Amino acid sequence: MNAHIITIGDEILIGQTLNSNAAFIGEELTKIQIDVRKSSVISDNEEEILKEFKRCLNENDLVIVTGGLGPTHDDITRTCIVKFFHTELVNNYEVLEDIKNLLNKRGKKITKTNEGQALVPKNAVVIRNSLGTAPGIWIEKENKIFTAMPGVPFEMHQMMNAFVIPKLKEKLINSDYYIKMLTLQTTGIGESDLFEKLGNLDELLNGAKLAFLPSQFGVKLRITVKEGNEESANNKMSEILQRIRSKSGRYIYSDKEESLEEVVGRLLIERGLIISIAESCTGGYISNLLTNISGSSAYFERGVVTYSNASKIEILKVDEDVIEKNGAVSLEVARQMAEGIKSISGSDIGLSITGIMGPTGAGIDKPIGLVYIGLCDDKVCTAKKFNFGDLRLRNKQRAAQAALEMIRRYILGISYDE
Amino acid sequence: MNAHIITIGDEILIGQTLNSNAAFIGEELTKIQIDVRKSSVISDNEEEILKEFKRCLNENDLVIVTGGLGPTHDDITRTCIVKFFHTELVNNYEVLEDIKNLLNKRGKKITKTNEGQALVPKNAVVIRNSLGTAPGIWIEKENKIFTAMPGVPFEMHQMMNAFVIPKLKEKLINSDYYIKMLTLQTTGIGESDLFEKLGNLDELLNGAKLAFLPSQFGVKLRITVKEGNEESANNKMSEILQRIRSKSGRYIYSDKEESLEEVVGRLLIERGLIISIAESCTGGYISNLLTNISGSSAYFERGVVTYSNASKIEILKVDEDVIEKNGAVSLEVARQMAEGIKSISGSDIGLSITGIMGPTGAGIDKPIGLVYIGLCDDKVCTAKKFNFGDLRLRNKQRAAQAALEMIRRYILGISYDE
Repeated sequence: MNAHIITIGDEILIGQTLNSNAAFIGEELTKIQIDVRKSSVISDNEEEILKEFKRCLNENDLVIVTGGLGPTHDDITRTCIVKFFHTELVNNYEVLEDIKNLLNKRGKKITKTNEGQALVPKNAVVIRNSLGTAPGIWIEKENKIFTAMPGVPFEMHQMMNAFVIPKLKEKLINSDYYIKMLTLQTTGIGESDLFEKLGNLDELLNGAKLAFLPSQFGVKLRITVKEGNEESANNKMSEILQRIRSKSGRYIYSDKEESLEEVVGRLLIERGLIISIAESCTGGYISNLLTNISGSSAYFERGVVTYSNASKIEILKVDEDVIEKNGAVSLEVARQMAEGIKSISGSDIGLSITGIMGPTGAGIDKPIGLVYIGLCDDKVCTAKKFNFGDLRLRNKQRAAQAALEMIRRYILGISYDE
Repeated sequence: MNAHIITIGDEILIGQTLNSNAAFIGEELTKIQIDVRKSSVISDNEEEILKEFKRCLNENDLVIVTGGLGPTHDDITRTCIVKFFHTELVNNYEVLEDIKNLLNKRGKKITKTNEGQALVPKNAVVIRNSLGTAPGIWIEKENKIFTAMPGVPFEMHQMMNAFVIPKLKEKLINSDYYIKMLTLQTTGIGESDLFEKLGNLDELLNGAKLAFLPSQFGVKLRITVKEGNEESANNKMSEILQRIRSKSGRYIYSDKEESLEEVVGRLLIERGLIISIAESCTGGYISNLLTNISGSSAYFERGVVTYSNASKIEILKVDEDVIEKNGAVSLEVARQMAEGIKSISGSDIGLSITGIMGPTGAGIDKPIGLVYIGLCDDKVCTAKKFNFGDLRLRNKQRAAQAALEMIRRYILGISYDE
């Protein structure tokens, strides 16, 4: 089965909103072996919408649409669906009940605008929306599937998980091949260096496909194996993984779609370690990442964002003279910050970070992108120097990723020397 | 001039990477009045790429492509361009020098892989890349413009700003209408409520267009005015703005594409106020947002992420008995946290936040999404209760936005009572 994802909305075209919906749908379809051929973004314009519906349904088995189903005047997707399928709107009492219940839970009365949302195309199966007032639409016609959902991400996610994906799974017939896809996540090495470290790709891959996906967090390696059945796909994937790991295993922090903070969180729990963090230049970003993980209170005790020198001295007992002599962005201050946070929190690990994120703040010997990361446990205190780039937010992300990687390498005993 | 944006890369289609490139390009083109008609994402597949080039160049004046120009084997965009335009690759010595210089700065020698990147299509103008090794490509043919850039966002941004946008500006001819677009950013009010507050839209808009764009940060209102010339577009926009502000001004925090933390930062600087933040449930996210802004050290003194009860008691001097009696997620603890951070930092404003982000941690009277935000100055200490939703990361974002809005309303003296 192949699919086309249509996102409707000027806000996406003109760059006000990132198209996270197409990404989510693409990921979910790929997981159940549906081939996402193309994705398009079109304007809230009737003519364009009708043209795109026609073209995409001609070329694909499945068309998934998001956006333009909301309660306001600029939501025209439903009208277009009615025209496209030559049908009409009818009142759906189940949906009306859903809307009333939802508003009731929020302590609100139903308005005329809300009531209008219970009107659905006559030929459609309704996808109920437990998190919002706009229902989704599912239409099957001439062996093709057409489905439309509202563009609010968490409403759409819930409808995909509860209705669309299970329904598609039923429809999927057995095919004569099996595709296995796996992504290795690396950090601390650039794309070209990694490419050269892997050597001869034909030997490495034996017919499989490998894609390099660089970002500020590291380079992902996506491996795609296509074999006659699941077992031989699994075997081939294992062989490739073994070869890649032998060449660059130390840089790989995961073989799943997970973040480095998830990996670090799991390692901390496994080892029963508690961490506390003292941040200067990253301004709370590392603590934020660690506490994005549910259950992080088991290993994250506290964080401090010691942005001013006064706060470094008062909270972390960093030596005023050391700041005076070396500057706040220095190996020695990083070390003292890590010692300080470990000591006041009583945690097993104290991690610290200080640096210059830009665009201002650079000195003669201290360029933008200069960062020191410190790590102390009961026995040792180390600090390491990094040089990142020129862009502030990117530097925060790269610095945080490097700090998380330092924790990972500390726990697993992976050195930074080659 | 109308445009189509093509993004090449399986990683976008299968949802591994968000399409931030199309968003950036869409935004930049819109700013110079180029009409972004459509955007599409296609696979790293030669046949698909050639088909899409043809269709898009037929239907549009301008086609902008990103992705697939990197140094590795899976980057096939350049080959496709050569085939599509029936041309050949030639060595470009300027590009070769750029690559050598860039690698030299990083302390690296040029490799064979890098050298290959100096090959460019014969019919193309080269777009030089100061931040990476892959050059961009600019081709004009039969009154159409075709341009391709690498998919690494910050390299592409630099090429857009330095080359593509200036070049497009030269090409733009005067048109007989003028489009003005403006976005109002609101927070603290839902889409339907805002819609009803605005009343009769025909009267409000007088022929202009209005779009509602909801997200976890609030609802954006995008107003589009199309008039014969710039002056009458400006006048009409002013009238509409005045009418909207009179109906729902208190919820509007900006009429620009800026974040609430930027607005709050500017207000703090204008009033000469210093703030410090004590976070529990948001785990450093608010401090992180405030310090995303360059120059934030002028108003952000320090932050603490008092995740454990011990840290609330030790750092912020929250009363242990009050935690025991009311729980860490309570109005009283929020108030004491705000008092504590104000007192230890000596800042003008102390802001605090404590809540239950989920999925675990809910109690009988304390559902997931319950959040208290406290704010103290020299005279008053207040705290306010909020109820957000069920999803952890979304709750962090909504809670942080509500906290920033509380600072904005405090500074501007806007009450929460209607």
